Amino acid sequence: MSTRAYGAHAATQPLQALSIVRREPGPRDVQIDIAYCGVCHSDLHTVRSEWPGTRYPCVPGHEIVGRVSAAGAAVDRFRLGDIVGVGCMVDSCRRCDACGDGLQQYCVNGFVGTYNGRTPDAPGHTLGGYSQRIVVDESFVLAIRHPVEQLASVAPLLCAGITTYSPLRHWNVRPGQKVGIVGIGGLGHMGIKLAHAMGAHTVAFTTSEAKRDDARRLGADEVVVVKNTAQMRAQGGSFDFILDTVAASHDLDAFTRLLKRDATLCLVGMPDRPHPTPAIAPLIMGRRTIAGSLIGGIAETQEMLDFCADKGIVCDIELIAAAEIDGAYERMLRGDVRYRFVIDTSTMGAA
Amino acid sequence: MSTRAYGAHAATQPLQALSIVRREPGPRDVQIDIAYCGVCHSDLHTVRSEWPGTRYPCVPGHEIVGRVSAAGAAVDRFRLGDIVGVGCMVDSCRRCDACGDGLQQYCVNGFVGTYNGRTPDAPGHTLGGYSQRIVVDESFVLAIRHPVEQLASVAPLLCAGITTYSPLRHWNVRPGQKVGIVGIGGLGHMGIKLAHAMGAHTVAFTTSEAKRDDARRLGADEVVVVKNTAQMRAQGGSFDFILDTVAASHDLDAFTRLLKRDATLCLVGMPDRPHPTPAIAPLIMGRRTIAGSLIGGIAETQEMLDFCADKGIVCDIELIAAAEIDGAYERMLRGDVRYRFVIDTSTMGAA
Repeated sequence: MSTRAYGAHAATQPLQALSIVRREPGPRDVQIDIAYCGVCHSDLHTVRSEWPGTRYPCVPGHEIVGRVSAAGAAVDRFRLGDIVGVGCMVDSCRRCDACGDGLQQYCVNGFVGTYNGRTPDAPGHTLGGYSQRIVVDESFVLAIRHPVEQLASVAPLLCAGITTYSPLRHWNVRPGQKVGIVGIGGLGHMGIKLAHAMGAHTVAFTTSEAKRDDARRLGADEVVVVKNTAQMRAQGGSFDFILDTVAASHDLDAFTRLLKRDATLCLVGMPDRPHPTPAIAPLIMGRRTIAGSLIGGIAETQEMLDFCADKGIVCDIELIAAAEIDGAYERMLRGDVRYRFVIDTSTMGAA
Repeated sequence: MSTRAYGAHAATQPLQALSIVRREPGPRDVQIDIAYCGVCHSDLHTVRSEWPGTRYPCVPGHEIVGRVSAAGAAVDRFRLGDIVGVGCMVDSCRRCDACGDGLQQYCVNGFVGTYNGRTPDAPGHTLGGYSQRIVVDESFVLAIRHPVEQLASVAPLLCAGITTYSPLRHWNVRPGQKVGIVGIGGLGHMGIKLAHAMGAHTVAFTTSEAKRDDARRLGADEVVVVKNTAQMRAQGGSFDFILDTVAASHDLDAFTRLLKRDATLCLVGMPDRPHPTPAIAPLIMGRRTIAGSLIGGIAETQEMLDFCADKGIVCDIELIAAAEIDGAYERMLRGDVRYRFVIDTSTMGAA
């Protein structure tokens, strides 16, 4: 079954229209006609081989929403026409402790990424959501309850949303707490919305004074410009949890020093150059921790989507045509997007 | 009230016999005739001004055991002749959240160290346990239930013991778990004994093949020589908790990679030169954490002493005379001590 897609045959090529093949739906498969796909930094790192191991042709995209257009005989959670989503994973080993705990993202045998993951299907690796159709085992398909007119803005919840929701929940963010969100980008702007919706006093940290008003609008109770030493010092030792969404190499001590005793600085950005080595004294002197977190499990992703539907939360996006992806990458590299690009797959032409 | 002590008037001087003054016991004070005092790395760092802020004369020592020789009228927990201990703290603000939680070591106003802490007593800073007598508020005095003939070996429990006990308890080490102890020195040898006594499968990590038999004798179920790459790889992803007692700058990634999902690497050593910057990927890919921990609270120190008395746990020590302290420092710097020097204060001469 052939479908239109956008991808690249090599790291140095711009993205181009491709025709790719999807498997016929098996008994447990859901076939999805993709309406929108968000654009994540990981897409760019992978398609340009900035991370090791990219397989070509590479079709990125793991923030997928669309409509069920076929379903296998054993599928019992979805029907034709349902609005559904697919995030960063399309399978996992289903046998290890992590899978048993519903934390497929930590599968010890390695989850199958929505793109660039190993699969028996041709061409031997998964092809992602920059395409008009995808076939996914129903265990990795999410139900979407948002109003249909919000669908484009829902797409980035599948990565940016869950990547921030999962640590906020895991570290039990709740009313009465003070929570910091570092970086106001694709992930950070969702972190602000979610921490605010969880009832925490939410403080946004940014290097850009220009984002102050936007951060307030997104739900931040306070905005701190990181290079303002006096503002930073005034926040010392006061945070229950800080979620750091910045992937660029940066000073972590500025944030560990803001934590209360026993509080956690959680990193969700994978730096390409290492961060400066963090000071150990703030950890020892307050039993503080530096942690990491990776996306979220399938059950938690569903929980996040339902939470967002209940609270009326979506991403702030710029809708683009498929032919604009390369330009969008360049703007993304400059931090010039508020706050996520989403591809309208109808711009790929008729199937 | 004058008492004999060993200390220094300047960073460059060897330790020498001094006569120092202790306050008369107030209503809540316990006067202790010190029998033994352990020798901690912090003593050396402080007396030699390797850490900022040393006040002179400096009398180190915060692993103190002795006998109550006087008690104020309001003292109700101790009587004349009781065997007692004093650790790293002799007071704290008693008003902040940490003090309220019994975690005086994290007092936000700064606990009063047993030496080099601020005090209204002359000379304006506290003088430690390298002395024959000390006067301490009963709230910071610990009861010791070990047999009296073990007292010298009990002294280092007051710092080395509680510094390892507290994180093992805080991270809930228990039977069925696999726990690593990095470094087999003053702290690490206690970590091995305590983790073993808590019922965990205990793995000692050392750079020294020569310590293998000793580590087994101390209670390690396995011993891994860190530079043995194959041995290290075989332990990957298998630890519930790792306690890293090594203060020297070293690679942390070797240990974060050994943690299970959601497990913690806890550092208790304050490095003088920074550790190489830790990789973030092992944190993100397994929701792992790097944490720190500082000694322990007073109630927890009592709990540790009682636990050790019940289990028959003491430190492995070398008893020295006061005049041997400088030589002991030099051996300590070479790692040539199994595993803690303890000063016999009777060698300071008659009071």
